[in-house]
Amino acid sequence: MRNNSYSAYSMWFQPKQGTAPAWELFPVGDDSHVIKAAEEWTELLGTLWDSKPRVKTGRLILGVYSDVSRITGEDLASPGTEGYSFFPHGDDFIIAGGDGTGVLYGMYRLILMLCEGKSITDYNSSPAYPIRIINHWDNMDGSVERGYAGRSLFFENEDFDYNPSRIRLYARFLASVGINRICINNVNVGKCEAGLLEGEKLEKLVLMANILREYAVRMVLAVAFDSPIIIGGLQSADPLDGEVRAWWKTHVSEIYNKIPDLGGFLVKADSEFRAGPFTYGREQSDGANMFAEILLPYGGYVFWRCFVYNCRQDWRDVTVDRPRAAYDHFMPLDGKFADNVILQIKLGPSDFQPREPVSPLLGAMKKTNQALEVQITQEYTGQQKDLYYLAGQWSEVFNFDTHGNGRIREIKKIVAVAGVSNLGREVTWTGHVLAGANFYAFGRLSWNPELSAQEVAEEWVKLTFGNNPEVTNNVTHMLMCSRKIFEKYTTPLGLGWMVNPGHHYGASPEGYEYDKWGTYHRADLQAIGVDRTARGTGYTKQYTPGAAEVFENLDTCPEELLLYFHRVRYDYRLKSGKTLLQHIYDTHFEGVEDVLAMIDIWDSLKSLIPEEAWQNTADKLHLQLLNSEEWRDVINSYFYRKTGIPDEKGRKIYI
Amino acid sequence: MRNNSYSAYSMWFQPKQGTAPAWELFPVGDDSHVIKAAEEWTELLGTLWDSKPRVKTGRLILGVYSDVSRITGEDLASPGTEGYSFFPHGDDFIIAGGDGTGVLYGMYRLILMLCEGKSITDYNSSPAYPIRIINHWDNMDGSVERGYAGRSLFFENEDFDYNPSRIRLYARFLASVGINRICINNVNVGKCEAGLLEGEKLEKLVLMANILREYAVRMVLAVAFDSPIIIGGLQSADPLDGEVRAWWKTHVSEIYNKIPDLGGFLVKADSEFRAGPFTYGREQSDGANMFAEILLPYGGYVFWRCFVYNCRQDWRDVTVDRPRAAYDHFMPLDGKFADNVILQIKLGPSDFQPREPVSPLLGAMKKTNQALEVQITQEYTGQQKDLYYLAGQWSEVFNFDTHGNGRIREIKKIVAVAGVSNLGREVTWTGHVLAGANFYAFGRLSWNPELSAQEVAEEWVKLTFGNNPEVTNNVTHMLMCSRKIFEKYTTPLGLGWMVNPGHHYGASPEGYEYDKWGTYHRADLQAIGVDRTARGTGYTKQYTPGAAEVFENLDTCPEELLLYFHRVRYDYRLKSGKTLLQHIYDTHFEGVEDVLAMIDIWDSLKSLIPEEAWQNTADKLHLQLLNSEEWRDVINSYFYRKTGIPDEKGRKIYI
Repeated sequence: MRNNSYSAYSMWFQPKQGTAPAWELFPVGDDSHVIKAAEEWTELLGTLWDSKPRVKTGRLILGVYSDVSRITGEDLASPGTEGYSFFPHGDDFIIAGGDGTGVLYGMYRLILMLCEGKSITDYNSSPAYPIRIINHWDNMDGSVERGYAGRSLFFENEDFDYNPSRIRLYARFLASVGINRICINNVNVGKCEAGLLEGEKLEKLVLMANILREYAVRMVLAVAFDSPIIIGGLQSADPLDGEVRAWWKTHVSEIYNKIPDLGGFLVKADSEFRAGPFTYGREQSDGANMFAEILLPYGGYVFWRCFVYNCRQDWRDVTVDRPRAAYDHFMPLDGKFADNVILQIKLGPSDFQPREPVSPLLGAMKKTNQALEVQITQEYTGQQKDLYYLAGQWSEVFNFDTHGNGRIREIKKIVAVAGVSNLGREVTWTGHVLAGANFYAFGRLSWNPELSAQEVAEEWVKLTFGNNPEVTNNVTHMLMCSRKIFEKYTTPLGLGWMVNPGHHYGASPEGYEYDKWGTYHRADLQAIGVDRTARGTGYTKQYTPGAAEVFENLDTCPEELLLYFHRVRYDYRLKSGKTLLQHIYDTHFEGVEDVLAMIDIWDSLKSLIPEEAWQNTADKLHLQLLNSEEWRDVINSYFYRKTGIPDEKGRKIYI
Repeated sequence: MRNNSYSAYSMWFQPKQGTAPAWELFPVGDDSHVIKAAEEWTELLGTLWDSKPRVKTGRLILGVYSDVSRITGEDLASPGTEGYSFFPHGDDFIIAGGDGTGVLYGMYRLILMLCEGKSITDYNSSPAYPIRIINHWDNMDGSVERGYAGRSLFFENEDFDYNPSRIRLYARFLASVGINRICINNVNVGKCEAGLLEGEKLEKLVLMANILREYAVRMVLAVAFDSPIIIGGLQSADPLDGEVRAWWKTHVSEIYNKIPDLGGFLVKADSEFRAGPFTYGREQSDGANMFAEILLPYGGYVFWRCFVYNCRQDWRDVTVDRPRAAYDHFMPLDGKFADNVILQIKLGPSDFQPREPVSPLLGAMKKTNQALEVQITQEYTGQQKDLYYLAGQWSEVFNFDTHGNGRIREIKKIVAVAGVSNLGREVTWTGHVLAGANFYAFGRLSWNPELSAQEVAEEWVKLTFGNNPEVTNNVTHMLMCSRKIFEKYTTPLGLGWMVNPGHHYGASPEGYEYDKWGTYHRADLQAIGVDRTARGTGYTKQYTPGAAEVFENLDTCPEELLLYFHRVRYDYRLKSGKTLLQHIYDTHFEGVEDVLAMIDIWDSLKSLIPEEAWQNTADKLHLQLLNSEEWRDVINSYFYRKTGIPDEKGRKIYI
């Protein structure tokens, strides 16, 4: 039976049928986030369940563990910073936090588990990473770089422009999955956004920080490296220039005066036309350390992005290989960065392609704090028209065996996870309703990277569409298959980049081939791909010897990454026995069939999914079908024209 | 010896050495343009020559022929509307115009011939086309669509913004080469520009029209077909809707009340996402005739663009062939258009590619007034970084033998020539100083299409750089070679389109191959090009049988257009004996050599060309060299990768 009480505005906080839990709320202590937890509990209980119990069964005791210990008379151990445990205690039920934030997080987890219909017993949890941060790429003109869910949640017309109650809803989503930082402005900082450091814009930033703080979310600000020039009128932004440092010091002092819990600065320097230390003949560490030194007294961090590469490359120069760039730039500097510098490293060496290997820089630096950056917004993965559940990609990264430093998730110097937001002003928040799963999964996995993509998907489906096994199984299945399906009809075997330049949606097999972005496949009539082994660009040598060996060798290289690491002839036989060419044809025909199969599944769920959400996704699946057909035909024609070899099965390829 | 009195602001009105002519000015009659001619004569004499004669040799009698007849006592025949004759008369010299505009034109021609150092005897001239119009693609935000010479001359910040004395200079340039209309706003009319029909914007438009009128230049306004919706708030723009017609009638009445000599409206309808009659299930003639009927009482024309094609084409659909579109849409409507409709037809069937055939629609319609549209701005022809003198292309069109309707320039139903402006706010007006030749040539050839590209080039060089044979010969040579050179290093043999999508500069051989714009070459490993013969898309059949036969046949098809009309194997032997592939390699290597040779020529002229102009062009030639090298390497690699066949001469091709 269709549940019509779905509200697009509510993401995973959807109304539940059945009866609300029957505890009497009993918060202890005066921590603001404990008080917030109690308020949220009351409000959510009031809105989520349509039926309220009349008889109370006991107390729900909420508090920091030390306060709770005083109530119960038992000495609770600390669940750690932001951690929590909850458990029954006689007739009562206790949520004990390592701090107030932990209480808030425990309360949300409890309520979401109740929403999921899970049985509630002893449970405790603490975050794997102290910093879990959302990066918005929002501009103050209201646009969102790589945004596919409408205009900015925060800005319009070169000014702040938001609905405070919607921001509170958003902050609730963040806290409910344990995200404790956001940066609301784009890493590509324009003149207008550079002005957030001062005056009226700073005052408005403070108001936003105040709202977020209610939910234990701390703000981070993206700053332009050359702010001293852009808004300060200085002649230089040289990090070793005394005047420049003084300028930053004054501004940092002012901003911390108004936002004492500011998380720090996020900086994209020397990257894609941005100024940076290189502009002044300095090292990346000189730039990052300048900020670090100035932020240190305030407990602030500098998130320093490692997306530094030559974006004016000459395609004719085969000695330059873009995937090498981050490692080549930063690895030699290991040990030179201050302790409150966090190098923010994209999960792969390219740029959020549908499939790429793990960045060899992650964990390679032994003396430098690192953040893993993932993209929740689907720039190259379907732009929230096509379904692409990203948790599998992230989980693969977390569990990647570095053959020397352990799994990525075990590396202690990775202290943060950053996700580029997929949210916007649309009523659904994410454009595609099912893309909400990606936002939820980011929170869950950055808290606990041991969770599987599958279990997180199930959680999200249950929370969003109610606990009906047919819905849960089918939608989870769609999410779990979505990555493979998208890969099938787009670029083959880790090649990446065969997209339309600029907007990055749809196929253009040679759109970037002679451009300056360093993204070449160099296909000719016999073979395709760049040899990145020791015989080629030597990129594989950036991995630890064990991992390098896996990728280096055609036989051990995961086939899904074959064309990332190797130049391969079209007649090369894959493990399936198929030629590379036939594999390309087959997967592209299959990809479209798979989309059709998803549409069938979705159609079969029509009566079981709230209409608003069902229609949204049905419309998106239709767009995905068109896109998959276009990709199939472009890619197949491209390779057919290149080789002249027809499909073995005689299916339609446009000549 | 370097002449340092060059002024970039002056285009072809450069200061001259030597002594000014010595007539005493003697205007007759009170026609405002006769008076203007006298004023201009005085001013130009005062600024162009550094030495003034002290003794007058006789009178320079300026006037409309009837007025002049009264002075001389001889009955002069009329030189026709806007025409003029000038000749010695005893000690006097007479400029007699068919009307005041003719006098103004005759004065400018005389002064320019004096500047050129020509001997002055009897001379008379009248325009081949009554309407010679510049189309600006300027937006009110100050940007210029396809503009490469800075911001708009007229607009900035959604408003008019110009220097009146610079507009007067511009109007002088226009009148000096006989251009009698301009449209200052883009054919892609946005909401802001649609507002030019009303209120304060209209008042400001009137001020601009007033300036232009001084120089006998009449304004034409580009209007949005759906203005009644955009600014009128109506529900429809259906040309057969009474309310819509009434809306236009009111606005036309108001604008003619303020600008009585308005030339009419320019309309881009049903083209590239613009609304048009098709939006309402009407014919193109319904739309054009609505405007024509309303403009008729005021003597206004509607310039109705024929750039109607499917810009959302599916590349998989080989039954649609974009070059057919204009003819297919408009030819069946011949006879249905009102007399004050002028169908504006691009010179070729594609879109101002470096080489394309003449549009088969030109002259095919026997009962419909037509305008030939050319592009002075170098969208696809080097963007005023690369040198491309366009007069050869235009001359070729004017002299194209339609095999049935005579040469294009002999077709009576072609009543207008429109040129898309290459001007902007830069001090040089055209960005590249030598691109000034294109603007000059547009005026000269639209007045007299029998002029050769070579003689116009010589005129312009002499006027701009002074009368030094070494300069004249060398720069004219550069201009005359420039088209061939550009063709050599860009797309081969009329193929077109191998440019970067969007901005259209630089090579991307498959950038448009799978896009929706209908611009495909469908290259595979054996052949390239679309068969547009009767066996293919049938495009050739749009030509008269005689012309069709020429293009239809591989042996008679001009080789420079071979790949426009035919699909050709790479091993096809051209008349030179070379294979198509080797021809491509050879021309691409040659193109770069030719650019180097131009640079050598330019370097050799350093002491003979004013420094400002020399440096401008030297800088541009350097950019052109980089561009030509990039094109050479991209195109050669592209075909090498496609075929695996190396260059016979073993030159460097990047693999």
